Amino acid sequence: MTSSYLNFRNSIPWLILLLEALFLTGFYFLNSTADERFPVPDIYPEFQDVNHMVIFGFGFFLMVLRRYGFSSTGFNLLIIVLGVQYSVLVEDLVFFFMEAHEGVLRSLAKAVISLTAVVISTGAVLGKTNLLQLIVMTLVELIAFRVSRWINREFMEVQEHDLSLMHVHLFGAYFGLAVAFCFPEPSPRLDKNRSTPKSDLLSMLGCVFLWVFWPSFNSLLAGFKTRAVLNTYFALAVSAVSAFMLSALTTKDGKFRVTHIHSAILAGGVSVSYTAQTITHPWIAMILGLLGSVITILGSHCVQRCLNPPLKIHDTLGVHFTFGLPAVLGAFAQVVLLVIKQWTNSQSSYSLDYLVLIHVGAFCQTISFALISGFITGLILNTKLLKIIPVSKYFEDQFYWEVSFHVKLTV
Amino acid sequence: MTSSYLNFRNSIPWLILLLEALFLTGFYFLNSTADERFPVPDIYPEFQDVNHMVIFGFGFFLMVLRRYGFSSTGFNLLIIVLGVQYSVLVEDLVFFFMEAHEGVLRSLAKAVISLTAVVISTGAVLGKTNLLQLIVMTLVELIAFRVSRWINREFMEVQEHDLSLMHVHLFGAYFGLAVAFCFPEPSPRLDKNRSTPKSDLLSMLGCVFLWVFWPSFNSLLAGFKTRAVLNTYFALAVSAVSAFMLSALTTKDGKFRVTHIHSAILAGGVSVSYTAQTITHPWIAMILGLLGSVITILGSHCVQRCLNPPLKIHDTLGVHFTFGLPAVLGAFAQVVLLVIKQWTNSQSSYSLDYLVLIHVGAFCQTISFALISGFITGLILNTKLLKIIPVSKYFEDQFYWEVSFHVKLTV
Amino acid sequence: MTSSYLNFRNSIPWLILLLEALFLTGFYFLNSTADERFPVPDIYPEFQDVNHMVIFGFGFFLMVLRRYGFSSTGFNLLIIVLGVQYSVLVEDLVFFFMEAHEGVLRSLAKAVISLTAVVISTGAVLGKTNLLQLIVMTLVELIAFRVSRWINREFMEVQEHDLSLMHVHLFGAYFGLAVAFCFPEPSPRLDKNRSTPKSDLLSMLGCVFLWVFWPSFNSLLAGFKTRAVLNTYFALAVSAVSAFMLSALTTKDGKFRVTHIHSAILAGGVSVSYTAQTITHPWIAMILGLLGSVITILGSHCVQRCLNPPLKIHDTLGVHFTFGLPAVLGAFAQVVLLVIKQWTNSQSSYSLDYLVLIHVGAFCQTISFALISGFITGLILNTKLLKIIPVSKYFEDQFYWEVSFHVKLTV
Repeated sequence: MTSSYLNFRNSIPWLILLLEALFLTGFYFLNSTADERFPVPDIYPEFQDVNHMVIFGFGFFLMVLRRYGFSSTGFNLLIIVLGVQYSVLVEDLVFFFMEAHEGVLRSLAKAVISLTAVVISTGAVLGKTNLLQLIVMTLVELIAFRVSRWINREFMEVQEHDLSLMHVHLFGAYFGLAVAFCFPEPSPRLDKNRSTPKSDLLSMLGCVFLWVFWPSFNSLLAGFKTRAVLNTYFALAVSAVSAFMLSALTTKDGKFRVTHIHSAILAGGVSVSYTAQTITHPWIAMILGLLGSVITILGSHCVQRCLNPPLKIHDTLGVHFTFGLPAVLGAFAQVVLLVIKQWTNSQSSYSLDYLVLIHVGAFCQTISFALISGFITGLILNTKLLKIIPVSKYFEDQFYWEVSFHVKLTV
Repeated sequence: MTSSYLNFRNSIPWLILLLEALFLTGFYFLNSTADERFPVPDIYPEFQDVNHMVIFGFGFFLMVLRRYGFSSTGFNLLIIVLGVQYSVLVEDLVFFFMEAHEGVLRSLAKAVISLTAVVISTGAVLGKTNLLQLIVMTLVELIAFRVSRWINREFMEVQEHDLSLMHVHLFGAYFGLAVAFCFPEPSPRLDKNRSTPKSDLLSMLGCVFLWVFWPSFNSLLAGFKTRAVLNTYFALAVSAVSAFMLSALTTKDGKFRVTHIHSAILAGGVSVSYTAQTITHPWIAMILGLLGSVITILGSHCVQRCLNPPLKIHDTLGVHFTFGLPAVLGAFAQVVLLVIKQWTNSQSSYSLDYLVLIHVGAFCQTISFALISGFITGLILNTKLLKIIPVSKYFEDQFYWEVSFHVKLTV
Repeated sequence: MTSSYLNFRNSIPWLILLLEALFLTGFYFLNSTADERFPVPDIYPEFQDVNHMVIFGFGFFLMVLRRYGFSSTGFNLLIIVLGVQYSVLVEDLVFFFMEAHEGVLRSLAKAVISLTAVVISTGAVLGKTNLLQLIVMTLVELIAFRVSRWINREFMEVQEHDLSLMHVHLFGAYFGLAVAFCFPEPSPRLDKNRSTPKSDLLSMLGCVFLWVFWPSFNSLLAGFKTRAVLNTYFALAVSAVSAFMLSALTTKDGKFRVTHIHSAILAGGVSVSYTAQTITHPWIAMILGLLGSVITILGSHCVQRCLNPPLKIHDTLGVHFTFGLPAVLGAFAQVVLLVIKQWTNSQSSYSLDYLVLIHVGAFCQTISFALISGFITGLILNTKLLKIIPVSKYFEDQFYWEVSFHVKLTV
């Protein structure tokens, strides 16, 4: 009986094959533009940074669970490469009907950024979904994110096209939480979902990687690159400093907690993502970084004690406070900065109320769309067809990988 | 008796010293051009990617053996830095007689790419050669590869100069196999040549690194950079996806095997290397990536069961199916694409037969030259002078490094 | 009683908070220039390399101690982000009075390079200082380094402004040594300050990272970038080769010692740092790399046996021979090359004696200023106020981090 649970041989390969066949057909008919019409790959170094960061950095960032190392890195890679092809294809389809086109490298960059939403959502259900469920989740989430961006652009009239991409953290975190809500909680006595110092260290490695490359992430598609880089750098610097400060303040004995450092040093990069290219004074970015760090660490205490237990959400990596709350802060800061800018600069073409309304609307639309679509996805993932793994088998590499028995214990 | 085997003090340092003295003399007389005549180091970011990939990525990619971590990374670095100086010097010598010159950074980039052949060959004999043998192999292989490229250019009239560099995977893999043929097989009961989950994880890290930087590798010297980047990216993406698909299909229980993922996610990058800058439709690159992955995984089963045992080849890292077979596929695809292109475009200056002949000739020349020179090198390496290590001492860091005894067991 | 030692809750967070408040105020009044007046972030890829190298590479390079992994990486990050804000602020303050300005990215790059001095000093006292002491040391050292550079520029009339930054290795190493002089030595029977193969491997990883990115470090602010890159690359290549040669020569049995490889493969990059952009023939850089490696490995034997024991200096990471001695060699080489250049080129505006005097003066000033300010800093750090950690608690992660007890033993 159990072995029927374990065997993905009849499902995963065929699903992947079907998808690849679809992608190939799609590319055959649509994308014929790996040409040199867009000759200067001027964003190539930044693109490489982001590519490196998403595949390598997140791959190791996710490696906190003691027995889930191969799955964390491996499935992260698989999901990204599947998702990138899918996103580029969807983008091409859209452009095909609009008869416009931008460079393929740029649409690849957009695809990689969109995938960040999926990777963040993955963090919330890490170790609890099988690969089949992950692939389905990826496909649904990318479509949902695309639709949410389209609504923002068409109905909310968000001016800057690519800014809508910056909802990626917000969408990813709340989508992931809504999916996690549909999965049963693991037993609190289970120790497989704890980290070991070794897995913590590898995860720290991934985290530092993300920290270093975050300025490239925020500036990749920005109009004012230098500004975006500098604001992100300063915000990250302040949030790293305050992560240490707040961790020592909130723990017993004034020691540092690895998970605090882990989630809070990135908060600055997330909270400044909407405004990185519009902030003109670095001290504003620095304050955003500080607040991002505060909200993450306080949030981690509140969420884990007060919010998750009654709602029965088990958020493996803590994406709610790592990415969700700083993104909410960032969206709020965007509105505040807009109001201040309008006050000081009266000759704008739009009225203040209207602009605030648009931004608040876009924010609410994104978050509610993420929650609803995430919840629906969670229900879909829990159908029998997708071979739900039993709670006792959560967080096990051995479930998917040929790892020899006697050695695994020493990992 | 054993200690005379162990002690490299009287051989390795003096060999290295001799080589360095030769290099310094060579550079003194030849290379005086670290000047600013070639002012724009426009390929510097890509060069750094490739440099990083070859030294760091391959260094960790090779780290599959449980007790051979220091040697894998350390010897890889040593071989590359020795080989790069040697290659630049040889290149300079050639240019000196031709009285031409290109920028030093470009000739450095070529040198680093050539070294990939050596690193690949190293994979086939990993743990079985001592450092003395490795250094001799490096020097011989670089000369052999250079001669093979020269034959291709002069006699086969391969048009694009730097394209001949792309035979690097083919040459490296078959040279390594021919060398490995001359070494005795380790006992099948030995467990030192197995991997541990920890070494697998570090090797996975190196593998993901290679994956991320492969587009830079294929585009570094390409004329159409954007196209080379995009085709390589798509080929890699598809081969990563199919690696997971095929691994689940070919194992018992539909689980993933780490070595499959390991070798097959890179297959796309290798198989597209000849044609990355000429393919105009991404779907062709994607099909190449898919076929590369298929040939690698099927090849890994065939080669390990049917080919290696009768030929008594022990290919430590499986370079035959990781780099050799995808490169053969790539060469074949190049001819097929050429034929198709000639059919659709009739006004070419060369006849179809002639062009096909050239390419098939270049391929056959490279592979046979690699096998023959590799076999001769293998014979040279097995002379008494180079202190062959006994089979029982294979795969041991302790042989070359001062590692304390009691800790080593826990590595 | 012991618990009062352990608890940093009442000191570290408030110190960090105070500093951040000061930085924010400073940035509010001074730095309003994250604008697009300096539009082309043309040094961005190199800046990313250096940033990556300093945070990630040094973070892992420092990870040699078996129980100090989190502190090595974590405190390195904290010190860098604190120091960078501080440096940018000081730089802005200076520019504010001079009413000049350069791009923020450039002043950020300078700040990151200056921080290297602090990171190197950290290596000498690694595991012996608590975080409070580290932060104070960072602040004092950055000011001292800034003053030393200012003296060099104003009184020694060092022509090239940014060249003065290249004293960073010299200053960092001798400052660190002078600080370490003021700390009591750990018991020689202690085994916590030994490395394990695992920590050695991670440290090797960091080291290879530093090796790969060193050309970017030396060329970041150079006028002749290509030349600086190439000279550094060749110097590093030769020093890596000679590191292996000399390690095998100086150990029993001709085996390689990991700490030798570790420190000597970087020697070339340090010793060529002053002259990277002026050397016109690569063979000179190569000889510098060779000598750097020789001085490092011979130095490591002399310093550890003859110099440190009588002076009672415990230099955890060996920064004296890793960074100090190669930097002395580099400064010496700079003078020699200058003399040779003056002889061959007689129409210089300065007399030879004068130029030599300036360079020797700048060198002596830097080293003596580093030693004096380091000694004073060491005395300050040993005041009761800063909660000196007892010798028996050296090299313990557990002192600062919440690590569970039973697992720590297996790290």
